[in-house]
Amino acid sequence: MKLIRFGNAGKEKAGVNIDGVNYDASFLQSDYDEKFFGRGGLAELDAYIKAHQSELIPIPEGSRLGSPIARPSKIVCIGLNYADHAKETNAATPTEPIIFMKSTTSLVGPNDDIMVPKNSVKTDWEVELAVVIGKKASYVDEAEAADYIAGYVLHNDVSEREFQLERNGTWDKGKGCDTFAPMGPYLVTPDEAGDVDAMRLWLTVNGTKMQDGNTSNFIFKVPFVISYISQFMTLLPGDVISTGTPAGVGLGFKPPVYLKPGDVVELGIDGLGTSRQEVVAYTKA
Amino acid sequence: MKLIRFGNAGKEKAGVNIDGVNYDASFLQSDYDEKFFGRGGLAELDAYIKAHQSELIPIPEGSRLGSPIARPSKIVCIGLNYADHAKETNAATPTEPIIFMKSTTSLVGPNDDIMVPKNSVKTDWEVELAVVIGKKASYVDEAEAADYIAGYVLHNDVSEREFQLERNGTWDKGKGCDTFAPMGPYLVTPDEAGDVDAMRLWLTVNGTKMQDGNTSNFIFKVPFVISYISQFMTLLPGDVISTGTPAGVGLGFKPPVYLKPGDVVELGIDGLGTSRQEVVAYTKA
Repeated sequence: MKLIRFGNAGKEKAGVNIDGVNYDASFLQSDYDEKFFGRGGLAELDAYIKAHQSELIPIPEGSRLGSPIARPSKIVCIGLNYADHAKETNAATPTEPIIFMKSTTSLVGPNDDIMVPKNSVKTDWEVELAVVIGKKASYVDEAEAADYIAGYVLHNDVSEREFQLERNGTWDKGKGCDTFAPMGPYLVTPDEAGDVDAMRLWLTVNGTKMQDGNTSNFIFKVPFVISYISQFMTLLPGDVISTGTPAGVGLGFKPPVYLKPGDVVELGIDGLGTSRQEVVAYTKA
Repeated sequence: MKLIRFGNAGKEKAGVNIDGVNYDASFLQSDYDEKFFGRGGLAELDAYIKAHQSELIPIPEGSRLGSPIARPSKIVCIGLNYADHAKETNAATPTEPIIFMKSTTSLVGPNDDIMVPKNSVKTDWEVELAVVIGKKASYVDEAEAADYIAGYVLHNDVSEREFQLERNGTWDKGKGCDTFAPMGPYLVTPDEAGDVDAMRLWLTVNGTKMQDGNTSNFIFKVPFVISYISQFMTLLPGDVISTGTPAGVGLGFKPPVYLKPGDVVELGIDGLGTSRQEVVAYTKA
């Protein structure tokens, strides 16, 4: 199954994508949020769609796509989870996962604009495979971690490198600015996602390929990461884990290359679709 | 005004504390959450209480107190905001605020147990003044920051020092375990809170005074901190900023002293009440 959300920002409705067509499912599900995932809403929805697919109505033409999940309780990210990316940023390969958190106010739709924050000169991109948690997870064994996955989502973990690395604090400072988490186009359930350990992921800026990696190069694989984070905090249904980015971020170029208004970022992961963001100057929301 | 929440964990109801007595206000307000603060619920509640105080009914005897606010979108914390605490942890005095985030799943009531996480040997305490945000805050000027404050809350920023400092990542790893954010007893609105720049705050373990500080020793004061964080992420109504802890944490002793099951932690801040937590071994929730 592929879940979408559509409509104006903050007023998104639930939908599904079937064979490339987006359908309204808002009469079935009010939203894809903690309650939905927590009560086993995915199974409900799947059963309904199998029985009533022919009755579904496509979403209005030109509808905006929102993030395919509602604002979660948290977005936890893994830093430096591809050896090539650790190398390009001059960081040591981690011996255990680095984790940090993105303010959930950074969440936007897959094709929304990326706003360069005020006073930013180092806004950067990061294509990532994000995992959505399906049920409450605390001290989960790695062998059972797959049971806690609702699905997978394409995520651009937009990052301000000066805020992240040069402003005297944890990485959180450079990760949570408004519009810094474009997610989607859809959440893909594990049965349709294919082999998560061998997914190509790529990102272009103005048509030039910047990142072209594969999840086969993960230092820490998805089940380990879920188990690991759940030792330090409880994950709730609908929470997001973003699993890190491969080489090719702006910080890694010599000299570094950063986003500026007018740039266009496109990204994709095998089986999880593509997204496209235009970069704009900051405007008060 | 002093807001409380009471009842079983996860089912708390809204209430108010007037002259030391806790009253049910759940017929007026469903909860003290983002919606409540965002729509100006504090002013509504205040008007009602002034008109109908004599009709309020005390909460049932023996009721548990929950956190006085519902689970927020985020808990942002300032690290090392008292020079004496920076010194005891062998950290340099920050030139600008260090910020990190606590998983909101760590939030509990003021007198709930603190669970020592599995595999923890360095669970520590931190009495803190926490600020609750009253309206959406993005790029707020320091001079206007007071307008964004809903109130103040006593907070024990419980911290696992090994997870925080020795596990190869940001501080977030040691700050968000379940039960690591006892808050309350109440949220106190600014008009009743007194001088936030001169509040004594203290903490005892098993009756022995460990922390005894004063917010007059802040390196970065509350309005600056709100303005500062709002440059990096948007703060939502009901969000929490915890402003750092004075000297006297377990990590600062030689040798360090950490919490173990059976310990009792008590803490308080002038005008914001007191709280008391018993320390217990981890049990699966």
